[in-house]
Amino acid sequence: MNNPETTSRTRPRRRDATVRGGGGSNLERSARYRNLVNPFAPVRLFSDDQIENMHLAALGILERQGMRVLSPRGRAALAAAGASVDESTNVVRMDPALVTQALGTVPAEAPLIARNPQRSCRVGGRHVVFAPVAGPPSVSDQELGKHSGTLAAYRDWVKLSQAFDVIHVLGQMVEPQDSPVHERHLDTTFAQLTLGDKVPYFYCRGDGQLADNFEMLRIACGIDEASFRAEPRCYTICNTNSPLQLDLPMTDGIIQFARHGQLVIITPFTLAGAMAPVTISGALTLAHAEALFGITLAQIIRPGAPVMYGSFTSNVDMKSGSPAFGTPEYTKAAFGAGQLARRIGVPWRCSSATASNAPDAQAAYESQMSLWGALLGGCHFILHAAGWLEGGLTASTEKFILDVEMLQMFAELFQPVSATNEEIGLDAIAEVGPGGHFFAAAHTMARYRDAFYAPLVSDWRNYGAWYEGGARTATQRANTLWRDTLAAYQPPPMDPAVLEQLSAFVTRRRAAGGAAPVS
Amino acid sequence: MNNPETTSRTRPRRRDATVRGGGGSNLERSARYRNLVNPFAPVRLFSDDQIENMHLAALGILERQGMRVLSPRGRAALAAAGASVDESTNVVRMDPALVTQALGTVPAEAPLIARNPQRSCRVGGRHVVFAPVAGPPSVSDQELGKHSGTLAAYRDWVKLSQAFDVIHVLGQMVEPQDSPVHERHLDTTFAQLTLGDKVPYFYCRGDGQLADNFEMLRIACGIDEASFRAEPRCYTICNTNSPLQLDLPMTDGIIQFARHGQLVIITPFTLAGAMAPVTISGALTLAHAEALFGITLAQIIRPGAPVMYGSFTSNVDMKSGSPAFGTPEYTKAAFGAGQLARRIGVPWRCSSATASNAPDAQAAYESQMSLWGALLGGCHFILHAAGWLEGGLTASTEKFILDVEMLQMFAELFQPVSATNEEIGLDAIAEVGPGGHFFAAAHTMARYRDAFYAPLVSDWRNYGAWYEGGARTATQRANTLWRDTLAAYQPPPMDPAVLEQLSAFVTRRRAAGGAAPVS
Repeated sequence: MNNPETTSRTRPRRRDATVRGGGGSNLERSARYRNLVNPFAPVRLFSDDQIENMHLAALGILERQGMRVLSPRGRAALAAAGASVDESTNVVRMDPALVTQALGTVPAEAPLIARNPQRSCRVGGRHVVFAPVAGPPSVSDQELGKHSGTLAAYRDWVKLSQAFDVIHVLGQMVEPQDSPVHERHLDTTFAQLTLGDKVPYFYCRGDGQLADNFEMLRIACGIDEASFRAEPRCYTICNTNSPLQLDLPMTDGIIQFARHGQLVIITPFTLAGAMAPVTISGALTLAHAEALFGITLAQIIRPGAPVMYGSFTSNVDMKSGSPAFGTPEYTKAAFGAGQLARRIGVPWRCSSATASNAPDAQAAYESQMSLWGALLGGCHFILHAAGWLEGGLTASTEKFILDVEMLQMFAELFQPVSATNEEIGLDAIAEVGPGGHFFAAAHTMARYRDAFYAPLVSDWRNYGAWYEGGARTATQRANTLWRDTLAAYQPPPMDPAVLEQLSAFVTRRRAAGGAAPVS
Repeated sequence: MNNPETTSRTRPRRRDATVRGGGGSNLERSARYRNLVNPFAPVRLFSDDQIENMHLAALGILERQGMRVLSPRGRAALAAAGASVDESTNVVRMDPALVTQALGTVPAEAPLIARNPQRSCRVGGRHVVFAPVAGPPSVSDQELGKHSGTLAAYRDWVKLSQAFDVIHVLGQMVEPQDSPVHERHLDTTFAQLTLGDKVPYFYCRGDGQLADNFEMLRIACGIDEASFRAEPRCYTICNTNSPLQLDLPMTDGIIQFARHGQLVIITPFTLAGAMAPVTISGALTLAHAEALFGITLAQIIRPGAPVMYGSFTSNVDMKSGSPAFGTPEYTKAAFGAGQLARRIGVPWRCSSATASNAPDAQAAYESQMSLWGALLGGCHFILHAAGWLEGGLTASTEKFILDVEMLQMFAELFQPVSATNEEIGLDAIAEVGPGGHFFAAAHTMARYRDAFYAPLVSDWRNYGAWYEGGARTATQRANTLWRDTLAAYQPPPMDPAVLEQLSAFVTRRRAAGGAAPVS
């Protein structure tokens, strides 16, 4: 009948038995996802003139309006560097020259050193780092539905994040609400350092907690304070409180991370139409001003401190005020933020996000819109790359697996291509001839094992086989996969003496009452 | 607790009552999806040298190996133009100069004239056309599951394709298997011409059927043969039978469409590892050779005939031989095909595809990978853009709605951006000040109604409202939406005299036995 592209004769026959059962290279494939290099030139949405205007507008905002800074220590440091501080309103204004000077000392690229050197990675350049979801108070899965985060759940999430090479760093994947707030940082840091060997994420909830976290990381890495300060081994996110405000723990977090030479990602969270102007260029300009302010503070504290330009600009539903993610406006904002980050030469962090309440088709297409905006926009560090659901209020284990599949697909997309005559297979084309097939060609036989991406959750069987196998959706298969992953989890090796030292530290700090969170 | 980006204080408050209930601009929004212009520079995967090598390799294949052509009329036309024909094997070889000459007469851009001028569109340049799924023998929905295509289902699919402005042309969305094969073309063409007013798609199943289709289109448009031949008013897909074969109805279809000046899209369907080499560059080179061959034939028949360079390169699962779609290799092939199409200056057609058997998360992320490959690759015409499921064997109504949402998101992404100080809202930023919100700012009030995309199926409500509302997934909501769309369908106006003339033609042709399909 010549239906286009769907008739039986244009569909492939089954492979010869001789080449069936290939694809034994999944471990090698997985390992090559550890250090990703993005080969694509970044997409441009705004013209250079438009970007320049947004940058100048942001400098103007900092000069005329400034930001309200709630940390006395932060205001003092900024004043000492020449910023203008109004102590009656806590507003700090800064000259464009101060910002420009600070931008001159930001490293264009920085390492992130893991306790296992194979897990170290880099931010900046053409490198891409994927980080798991951060911050949800709840977790969800298909059996139990949505429920409060626990320390047990957090530990499972560390194991899941450790298990896939395409997840490059650990994180704060869920808030363990059953852990006392004074000790919670000890619990999450201990879990990250013992259940995984990738770079950890520490919250900025005051100097006391940070001092504990940094000490535990030094113990785990077996290094002294000087070595610790020499290279970044952990990361944090400092959100501005848009519009134009920097609160106490965030300001102090920027100061402590910069002082210790650890990676701080300064991220305004600007929802256009809510805490930012209703236009994409307006929301981006406000975010740009706030990020410039935080970056300047970090460079004042320690010129050359590793920082990233974080962007998280989306829009609200103008009918309900609900935040939306992975929208066309979100993708546009990602492209624009990447251009602004390149304008100032600072490595850029973006996100994968969705407003969907279920790990369904909406969750998948909104996350894809986010990922493409970030990755074709030239992003260096994708936070929330796996597990984010419900606007970030829930960490979904099924969504985590679906996201890992998507990230692995991008990792494959980044692998280099070849177009030599040998690679093209001119001999094979001559050998097969009109109407033949390539299953048994020598060119195929030499390459088929490693030719294509082998999926994690995607099911490519024909309808009959899929139906007979239970007709399970991708989300249902993802449920099985995260359970299997947890069951197969193996902790990374750790020197027993180091483990003992870490445990002793935690016991001592618990006995001393831990450290109160600052907010 | 300062969880990044998820604490209550960084989430927006409800809007003021004064600005609630906005978003009255959906009709205007929809109308602006009718003519889409892609603002993005195409992504490059291969270097210029690699593309040149693939192009030269393809020319070499046509010169040395040639293609087997099963149509005597096709072989004769090619021989008359100087190609070398071996009548014992039906193989036709051609000199690179013949191909180059043909490429010189291909229009870089062409109109597609609809019977309703508001539905006319353009192929080439920066224009983007979305076409519905074509060719599935089956349909599926959430209630009835998968079942054979019928004429009633086909008519519903015409109505669905007519209903959304982001679907620019009609198509062969499902095979109406209850319509006799001699009369099926009359049924599908009548449905396209009376239930819709967009450009129709005609299958190439022999001269007899095409003559009927063309005559019905002339009746519907009220034009004579000369006017018909002057501008393209319908389109078709001619698949080569890879590797290196062109069958009878496809060859004759190219000839008839070119002779009548109608748009023919020449698409090799090359699955790497099956009917094409196992490498992306190999599969693309083979496809390029075959497309060049078909384009050359069209230009020999009528220099200047509107043609498109169709690409449909994906890979098979090397374990099972099953075709896979929306894979990383698929996306790479799309980027590469776009580069090859630009190398020869011919408008390019690509697809949105998935191997998923259900309209689930896999279907969504594989379709997204396809769409981004096509649209960031610079594609002009996306076939199968809405409704494709199960490797193209099923037209899914829920998938259709999910796809329309994704297409509308791209349409929004294509809308131009502004970054003037007025658009940025510097006054609003000054007015709101640190810690405030923008809901009631004059800058917001003036823009909120039209500020953001209003989704079709995405649900942005908070978890509680969504859960209370039935906790329905995107796929379940899509089910409601296609039913509502069919219920609200209104046929486009048609002059009763024209309708009568069309009906009389169909009655007469039925009485005469219709026209046998050629295969």
